[in-house]
Amino acid sequence: MPPRRFAIGRTEDAVHPDTIRAALAEFIATAIFVFAAEGSVLSLGKMYRDTSTASGLVAVAVAHALALFAAVSVSYNLSGGHVNPAVTFGALLGGRISLVRAVFYWVAQLLGAVIASLLLRLATGGMRPLGFVVAAGEGVWHAVLLEAAMTFGLVYTVYATAIDPKRGHLGTIAPLAIGFILGANMLAGGPFDGAAMNPARAFGPALVGWRWRNHWVYWLGPFAGAAVAALIYEFLLIPAETPHAHQPLAPEDY
Amino acid sequence: MPPRRFAIGRTEDAVHPDTIRAALAEFIATAIFVFAAEGSVLSLGKMYRDTSTASGLVAVAVAHALALFAAVSVSYNLSGGHVNPAVTFGALLGGRISLVRAVFYWVAQLLGAVIASLLLRLATGGMRPLGFVVAAGEGVWHAVLLEAAMTFGLVYTVYATAIDPKRGHLGTIAPLAIGFILGANMLAGGPFDGAAMNPARAFGPALVGWRWRNHWVYWLGPFAGAAVAALIYEFLLIPAETPHAHQPLAPEDY
Amino acid sequence: MPPRRFAIGRTEDAVHPDTIRAALAEFIATAIFVFAAEGSVLSLGKMYRDTSTASGLVAVAVAHALALFAAVSVSYNLSGGHVNPAVTFGALLGGRISLVRAVFYWVAQLLGAVIASLLLRLATGGMRPLGFVVAAGEGVWHAVLLEAAMTFGLVYTVYATAIDPKRGHLGTIAPLAIGFILGANMLAGGPFDGAAMNPARAFGPALVGWRWRNHWVYWLGPFAGAAVAALIYEFLLIPAETPHAHQPLAPEDY
Amino acid sequence: MPPRRFAIGRTEDAVHPDTIRAALAEFIATAIFVFAAEGSVLSLGKMYRDTSTASGLVAVAVAHALALFAAVSVSYNLSGGHVNPAVTFGALLGGRISLVRAVFYWVAQLLGAVIASLLLRLATGGMRPLGFVVAAGEGVWHAVLLEAAMTFGLVYTVYATAIDPKRGHLGTIAPLAIGFILGANMLAGGPFDGAAMNPARAFGPALVGWRWRNHWVYWLGPFAGAAVAALIYEFLLIPAETPHAHQPLAPEDY
Repeated sequence: MPPRRFAIGRTEDAVHPDTIRAALAEFIATAIFVFAAEGSVLSLGKMYRDTSTASGLVAVAVAHALALFAAVSVSYNLSGGHVNPAVTFGALLGGRISLVRAVFYWVAQLLGAVIASLLLRLATGGMRPLGFVVAAGEGVWHAVLLEAAMTFGLVYTVYATAIDPKRGHLGTIAPLAIGFILGANMLAGGPFDGAAMNPARAFGPALVGWRWRNHWVYWLGPFAGAAVAALIYEFLLIPAETPHAHQPLAPEDY
Repeated sequence: MPPRRFAIGRTEDAVHPDTIRAALAEFIATAIFVFAAEGSVLSLGKMYRDTSTASGLVAVAVAHALALFAAVSVSYNLSGGHVNPAVTFGALLGGRISLVRAVFYWVAQLLGAVIASLLLRLATGGMRPLGFVVAAGEGVWHAVLLEAAMTFGLVYTVYATAIDPKRGHLGTIAPLAIGFILGANMLAGGPFDGAAMNPARAFGPALVGWRWRNHWVYWLGPFAGAAVAALIYEFLLIPAETPHAHQPLAPEDY
Repeated sequence: MPPRRFAIGRTEDAVHPDTIRAALAEFIATAIFVFAAEGSVLSLGKMYRDTSTASGLVAVAVAHALALFAAVSVSYNLSGGHVNPAVTFGALLGGRISLVRAVFYWVAQLLGAVIASLLLRLATGGMRPLGFVVAAGEGVWHAVLLEAAMTFGLVYTVYATAIDPKRGHLGTIAPLAIGFILGANMLAGGPFDGAAMNPARAFGPALVGWRWRNHWVYWLGPFAGAAVAALIYEFLLIPAETPHAHQPLAPEDY
Repeated sequence: MPPRRFAIGRTEDAVHPDTIRAALAEFIATAIFVFAAEGSVLSLGKMYRDTSTASGLVAVAVAHALALFAAVSVSYNLSGGHVNPAVTFGALLGGRISLVRAVFYWVAQLLGAVIASLLLRLATGGMRPLGFVVAAGEGVWHAVLLEAAMTFGLVYTVYATAIDPKRGHLGTIAPLAIGFILGANMLAGGPFDGAAMNPARAFGPALVGWRWRNHWVYWLGPFAGAAVAALIYEFLLIPAETPHAHQPLAPEDY
């Protein structure tokens, strides 16, 4: 197996130009994702008052799925395509990236989400971003569990399609599976708590729209779900077959 | 052709760590699928009373298609990506997996669907899962035929894209075709009987929501359709060209 | 370039087991496609009276796109994945298949569409298939032009992604592009004439529902568009570089 | 790395048959894209008066995403799959194509959009194309910024998935990412200014429908966004590792 480009040595992470480039790639990819994702929510608001319809939910979920696919696709060659602090947290727990690199990614992801939210506010003539909110009738700890369960699915998918070394090089399937499970989970969880599964996605609009109610839910839930997914995949599903791991990739590993 | 990882010898199936890992992969993948799939049905119920609209149907069908794509993608390297007792039944009839392994898969799939339904009930603050029901005006034997016809399409697709040895290694096309035919068939069959094509998908919500009316339809129909698809593909469409089967994969087989 | 499996010698076509298997693959794939496609139209009728809404159009177009993707995916290894008499006509004009094989395909495609329509009528408890109709306000020759223009796009896409020998072996991109252009064109042409682009898709429901009004439009338009697309692609866009054509596939041709 | 087919020598561009063929491919691909894209807008107008609903937005965005995927897929082997004067402008700024070739592409793209709009007008019995308009309440400079931001995302995606030489040969991921980010951005920007991100897409319907109000917005915004994306990707994200650039493609570069 060739060494993954984003799993380079730990000590030189901070100064290595590859780390800077990877953080820049995360910054731009997260901005592209959040611009379309939060934009799709504002765009419903531009059209009507009442946005809680099935077709509004489809519009928002499809926008998230398509935009995340593109964001992962444009960044995975350069940074591994995290675009999400919870994914970075899972990769850190599984020992797939160093702490220094994780911190770089987190800063880049949050900055990207903030810049995208600012641009949206400007480009829509001042509409205040909405971000996420726990729906009436949904308890806040239920929302934490919901975010954790949905993020479990997302990060497990990242692990199985983009990190698992048996998969060899990342192909089209990884960004598709990652974007699609996000979209599917939004169709399930959207009416309950908005279905963020991504603290940066929640943070940018919260800061620019200055709406902090229950904001911690969108950090605790995703980090908890990501941790469980990473530990299960890393320790139960990746077999510890060292001899195989150093063989060159055979065609059937693609 | 390299031996498929999930077609290992029959006698050691039960104890081989690969079988345990494969069953775990089926358990988690089915849970991820059923969580988003059944969740999309509950999410419509959270938004309105009347859920039988075209946009509601699109929301549910898209959620199923995207979630099944992800579920097959995350599990096919480890278990063959069945995520469906009817698919396992077809693979068993075609001699593609052993009975012991099939039983492991069935238990894992049903458990995954139950866990997902329980988590959904908890995370939504107690909403009772809905599962599947034969619509007014649709006879129950018509529904059996409908489930059989739709599952025929699904399992034929699994055979042609994921099992047929001429395809060599599984690529992106297999989970896409499997997820997409599920979504297309739900758009066709949804208003008539919900369009399960998967006994585990029906069983989890039925148990947790305790709704058993016509439940047998969602076992008999899918198993019948899967049997016909597996036998037709296995015996009429896979040519018995033994000499070719042992040649190494040429590039044009990808 | 390895010889395409579906371009075998002309004289043995009728008796060669590969031709029979290819025709069987076309029959089943067309049945799977028409079942979901026409089913999505009936399913709207099951839910309401008034089906001409944007979300109804999305439901039908998405069902067609997803089902055609699956139908092409399951058949292209065996038959080239035509699933459409107009595609077969284009391939025949371009010299890509023999007339004998084309006749086998046409019969198989029409039979598949009829069987699917019969199964649908049975499984829905007797609903009469609807098929295609030219909308009020749309002239019938305008509809012929519309079908021709849309089928031009479809068959040009088939040529560029699935037939062009420079593409080498068929990959995921061919069925995706074919299914997606069908879906996009239905979103454009649906309200005007239903947007068939496929005589078999129109014929099955017309026969089983016994609705023949303007049926010829759905043969003339698609065959005309397919002819133009095949001739343009075959003679203007495939360069006549004979030396290259016999070289083995280089990796960059994938 | 093999030389990209569309980056041939500059002096012979105008007379080389490959340039003519590439321009023809751009012409047809843009016509296919604009036919379905603008057609989806007219099709909503055929069904109702009031087209600003979430499901109408989904229909239009999905049509654009699917049609652009097909248009890029059918042309990238022949022309690089631009289908958009802003993409060609970005590739020109980054030194990826010559000015002569860019002019050929621009003429072909605009002609393709005009022909598609004419065909649509004819095939719909005279409906006047609508094209793009800045919505009430959205300032025209806000619209320029919005077009620039959205086109930044689109052209950055083109660069990262289709032009970056580290990606080697174009695969399925490039047209998917390009089509999907277009669709996602339309779901975000549609209600504000229509979300063109493509001057040819705006020009064809403007000419045939003779609607020029604010037309310059759809040239200035996309060209500005494309310029920023091309320069950032070309100079900050493609590392200047010359030695690597001439090595043959290793398997992990696919």
